[in-house]
Amino acid sequence: MASNASKSGGDWVGYREEIQVLDCTIRDGGLMNDHRFEDAVVKAVYDANVAAGVDYMEMGYKASQRIFAPDSAGGWKFCREADVRRIVGDNPTSMKLSAMCDAERTDYHEDVLPCEQSVFDMVRVATYIHQIPTAIDMIQDAHQKGYATTVNLMAVSTVPEYELDRALEQLAHTDVGAIYLVDSFGSLYSEQVQYLVGKYLSFAQPAGKQVGVHFHNNLQLGFANTIEGIVRGANRLDATFAGLGRGAGNCQMELLLAFLHNPKFDLRPVLRCVQDHIEPLRKTLKWGFGLSYLITGMLNQHPRAAIKYGEADEPGDIVEFYESVIEQA
Amino acid sequence: MASNASKSGGDWVGYREEIQVLDCTIRDGGLMNDHRFEDAVVKAVYDANVAAGVDYMEMGYKASQRIFAPDSAGGWKFCREADVRRIVGDNPTSMKLSAMCDAERTDYHEDVLPCEQSVFDMVRVATYIHQIPTAIDMIQDAHQKGYATTVNLMAVSTVPEYELDRALEQLAHTDVGAIYLVDSFGSLYSEQVQYLVGKYLSFAQPAGKQVGVHFHNNLQLGFANTIEGIVRGANRLDATFAGLGRGAGNCQMELLLAFLHNPKFDLRPVLRCVQDHIEPLRKTLKWGFGLSYLITGMLNQHPRAAIKYGEADEPGDIVEFYESVIEQA
Repeated sequence: MASNASKSGGDWVGYREEIQVLDCTIRDGGLMNDHRFEDAVVKAVYDANVAAGVDYMEMGYKASQRIFAPDSAGGWKFCREADVRRIVGDNPTSMKLSAMCDAERTDYHEDVLPCEQSVFDMVRVATYIHQIPTAIDMIQDAHQKGYATTVNLMAVSTVPEYELDRALEQLAHTDVGAIYLVDSFGSLYSEQVQYLVGKYLSFAQPAGKQVGVHFHNNLQLGFANTIEGIVRGANRLDATFAGLGRGAGNCQMELLLAFLHNPKFDLRPVLRCVQDHIEPLRKTLKWGFGLSYLITGMLNQHPRAAIKYGEADEPGDIVEFYESVIEQA
Repeated sequence: MASNASKSGGDWVGYREEIQVLDCTIRDGGLMNDHRFEDAVVKAVYDANVAAGVDYMEMGYKASQRIFAPDSAGGWKFCREADVRRIVGDNPTSMKLSAMCDAERTDYHEDVLPCEQSVFDMVRVATYIHQIPTAIDMIQDAHQKGYATTVNLMAVSTVPEYELDRALEQLAHTDVGAIYLVDSFGSLYSEQVQYLVGKYLSFAQPAGKQVGVHFHNNLQLGFANTIEGIVRGANRLDATFAGLGRGAGNCQMELLLAFLHNPKFDLRPVLRCVQDHIEPLRKTLKWGFGLSYLITGMLNQHPRAAIKYGEADEPGDIVEFYESVIEQA
């Protein structure tokens, strides 16, 4: 029973000091509403994270304003410094802020300011396997500008193992601080998580880097797989309030903080924020587990078909949906 | 990666033939509606289970009609033979039927007929730790009448270990076929499941008995913990359609069948039944994960306070609820 325990041999009721929690409610949730959150919601999540002792909050993306028209989405797709400071001021707290930068969709040379001019502390580079060279350039750019960095290798469940090994090897040679296992399709079961976290650690640990986990709830395993990641040695954990996120959503922050035993965390501000600010969003945003996500998850597919199924005015026939997804597999 | 694999050394894409799945949708779901299901729903679940290849279906309880007035609840609290046969005839299928018999709340000498006169194949004895002697008498009674038997030791998360060891030792000396690990409060995490399944097996295996698992979803781990049980050697698995069951509900049958690789199972009939017959019940029945269940689950308490919280017309303040439950802990 070592999951939550310190490396130095605690037990079930202990905790591991190295663990850091990142909230990406606004960033991942933004995929559900074109990043159009009211300031009050963003501020409420920020305040709750600070009060709860969460280590990082991810405010959104740094998307290219050449590729995406600035009025095509809410501000949290671009995370302009002024927009962020409107909510957090100069962020006079111990919580750190991050922005996600998608490979090939970020003008990182221009839009990522030198860290000392920015309200952000960390740049998280999101990359598909074929974009690794770009991702590495982005990591080094951010590192040189003074940021902490992570890299999120997306859709790992579709990456052939020899390519994954090669990517991890290359990433281990960069200055990145943490390499994230990302279950984009929400298709991983516990034994796969164990295997992959072990693999990531085998590359990351010798290079002095941490491993992080980012899990989705398509098979209702977002939280369970995060525990599995902790047990296997992942120290960076992503979660969102009420699991808000694309499709079936994410590992729920409230479950994660209830599980972690580090006294620096307080669950109450998260409960309050979920009840007062996140659950009311369900009036217009549909996220969370459902049969259509089970189907794309079990078949290791992108949830886009399941999202479309859920957006229809009348629910479609679920068995017909199952057959249609199998056919695309 | 051996979870799903045969004992003889299969792998992740294999399966373990010994695994048997029991559906208890009507039995556990009955705790939400005083066992008042329309015949059409019970028949739909029965037909879906048969078509899906589920091994057992539990129809309800065999509650004492001296303790509980017959009109105080729907028929699935009593499972009279005539009521069951109205749905299943003589059950001319390969699926077996079970009824749950609560210790001290069942007139088992009278109400459990000799097996050859009954439509039931299996008696599941549910017991708290202090009722073990009664449970053992019920097991032996059912065994002598020709039934297969299991014993479900409830609320294990509150049982001191020396008492649990003694109970398992005594149960291992009975004729019971399977001993179930039951997470009544939905409070177990994966490492606790691992530990407890290992303990149960250490008593059951030498006696030639199986270990089963019955998990609830208070921490959204009902399915995940069932996987954990499989990985650790439990071969009897309880699940319900859409997780229908008391409070936060149970391990979902649709997730479980999607996970198991035995070709005898077909997910489609379950998907169809969930969509057409179970999800519509949400108009009047509130079951499934929510913040109040997280709170009672994390504090290892009976969910009754959470159920009451959820039944109120206006949702109560969740942080006040948290404080009130901590105070009772």
